[in-house]
Amino acid sequence: MLPFARLTIIGLGLIGSSVARAVRAKMPSVRITGHDSDPSVRERAVALGFCDDVTDTAGASVMDADLVVLCVPVGAMGAVAAEFAADLPADAIVSDVGSCKQSVAEALGAALPNAIIIPAHPVAGTEKSGPEAGFATLFKGRWCILTPPENAPEAAVERLRIFWQQLGADVEIMDARHHDMVLAVTSHLPHLIAYTIVGTADDLEGVTQSEVIKYSAGGFRDFTRIAASDPVMWRDVFLSNKDAVLEMLQRFSEDLSALQRAIRYDKGDELEALFARTRNIRRSIVEQGQDDDVPDFGRKH
Amino acid sequence: MLPFARLTIIGLGLIGSSVARAVRAKMPSVRITGHDSDPSVRERAVALGFCDDVTDTAGASVMDADLVVLCVPVGAMGAVAAEFAADLPADAIVSDVGSCKQSVAEALGAALPNAIIIPAHPVAGTEKSGPEAGFATLFKGRWCILTPPENAPEAAVERLRIFWQQLGADVEIMDARHHDMVLAVTSHLPHLIAYTIVGTADDLEGVTQSEVIKYSAGGFRDFTRIAASDPVMWRDVFLSNKDAVLEMLQRFSEDLSALQRAIRYDKGDELEALFARTRNIRRSIVEQGQDDDVPDFGRKH
Repeated sequence: MLPFARLTIIGLGLIGSSVARAVRAKMPSVRITGHDSDPSVRERAVALGFCDDVTDTAGASVMDADLVVLCVPVGAMGAVAAEFAADLPADAIVSDVGSCKQSVAEALGAALPNAIIIPAHPVAGTEKSGPEAGFATLFKGRWCILTPPENAPEAAVERLRIFWQQLGADVEIMDARHHDMVLAVTSHLPHLIAYTIVGTADDLEGVTQSEVIKYSAGGFRDFTRIAASDPVMWRDVFLSNKDAVLEMLQRFSEDLSALQRAIRYDKGDELEALFARTRNIRRSIVEQGQDDDVPDFGRKH
Repeated sequence: MLPFARLTIIGLGLIGSSVARAVRAKMPSVRITGHDSDPSVRERAVALGFCDDVTDTAGASVMDADLVVLCVPVGAMGAVAAEFAADLPADAIVSDVGSCKQSVAEALGAALPNAIIIPAHPVAGTEKSGPEAGFATLFKGRWCILTPPENAPEAAVERLRIFWQQLGADVEIMDARHHDMVLAVTSHLPHLIAYTIVGTADDLEGVTQSEVIKYSAGGFRDFTRIAASDPVMWRDVFLSNKDAVLEMLQRFSEDLSALQRAIRYDKGDELEALFARTRNIRRSIVEQGQDDDVPDFGRKH
C-alpha cells in the first residue's frame, strides 16, 4: 500500500535528491516530479536521473501531485509556495524538510491558506550540498519529526508517517514550538558554535592557518565538518528560529563562563565532574543507535 | 638503524599502549618495559602482551632504559618523574606525549635536573581510554611536535625524531610556548567547548535528555565524541595551559557574541559570509590528509 502515487520535490539538493533516491529504491512505482529554481541544478538532476520529470517552473511541478515536499532553505519556503499556489491540486498534501517548524508552518499557511499542510523534519544530513550529494539510505534509522497543525486531517498525517517510515525513518509527532526548542539544542546551537570556532581559528594572528590545518586532528577537525554545511540553509535556520537559538546560546555562554572561571581559579574537581558526566551522554547516543560504536567516528588510521 | 634499543613507557592507557603496539609493529627488536600506577591497568597490560615486561614501580621500569616516554596526564608528569629520578640512567632520554609542553618541560626539569629531556606531543588520539583502546597505527600520518629546550643535544633530538617517524608520524620542531598556543586553538578550545555544550544540553529542563539523544544526529552527536575523552587528562590540560586556553576562550566568546548580535538583528549577510569562509578550511584539512574525504565522517547510513 503506497501512501502517495505522485510525488513532487521542490529543491533538488542534498535532502531533496536523497528523498527522490530513497523513494526510487523503496517505492519504485511512485512517479517523481522535481523542480529547482537553479537551472544548473535542474540540468544536473536530469543527468542524474532520480526524477521521472524535472520541470522549469514550480507551478508545472505540482499540477498532478498528491504529495509536495519542499526541500529549500527555510527562508525560501513562503516564496516557493506562493509560486505554485495557483497550480496546487485541492487534495494534495504539502510538506517540507526544514530544520525550523514554526516559521515554516506560518510561511506555508500564509501562502497556501486552503491547502493541507503537514510540516516535517527528517533529522538527517551530511555536510555536503547539491544533487550529487544525496543518497537513498540517508534517512535509515534516523528520526523524522512531523509537526501537524491542530486542524490537520488525521488520515493525511498517517499517510505522511507511512511515507517516511517507508524511507527507513522512525517517525515522531511533536508540537512545532517544542520541535524548535529541541532542535535548537541538538542541531542549531552545535552548528552555530562550530561555525564560530572555525572562524575564530581562521582569524588568529599568532597561529597561522597552515598550523591550524596541520594540527587539526587534536579535535578542531571535528568542528570543521558541520561548519562546512550549506551557508544559505544555515543562515535561514538561525534567523527563522531566532528565539530558541538565542535562548540556547545564552545558556551555553553562561556555562562557558562558569567553566572559564573554574579554569582561572584552578577548580579541577569542578572540571573533572563535568567531564565525567558528559561521557555518559555519548554512551547513551551510541546505545540508542544514533551514532556508530567505533572510536574516532571510524576514521581510517 | 634503531634510534633506541630499550624503551620504557610509563602510563599504559590509550596513548602509552599505542606507542608500545606501534613499536612492536615497526621496531620489533626494541625491548619494551611498561609501568602504570594503577595495578588493574598493569594486570590488563600483561594480559594484552604489548610490553616485554611490566614493573610494579616506576623506578624498576627505567633502570636500563635508553628512552623513557611518559604517557600520564600532564598534571602527573612531575610526580612520576620524581618517583624514578634516582633510578634513571645518566644517558637515557626522557620524553612524553602530553598535550601541553611548557608546563611539562618545567615539571620534568624540576624533577630531573640532570636528565636529557625532550618533550613531545603526538597530535593523535581517540575518545577511548585504557590499555585496550590503543592500536599500532594511531600515529600514522599524524603530526608529532617536539619541543626541545635550547640546550638539548642535537643528536638526542634527531634520535627522537627518527623514533616518531618510524611509528608513522610526521615530525615538527617547535618552541614550547608556541606549541601551547597552537594546540589551545586546534585541540584544547574544541574540547572545552564540546564539554560545555554537552553539559548545557544535559541541564535543560524544557528538553528531556531522551530527546537530546534521539535527535542528536542533527549535529550534537559530533560534539559528544570529544566530550567523551578522558576526564582527568583533560582537567590537567586546561589547568596546565591556562593562559593560552583562557585567551582563546576570550576570543571565541567575543566572536560568539558578534554572531549572537547578527542573529538578533537579522544580519543575514554577515552570517552567510562567515559560513562560506569556514567551508574552505574544511576543504584544506581534507586536502592535506588531516581528515578523510567522506561525507559525515564516513558514518554508515
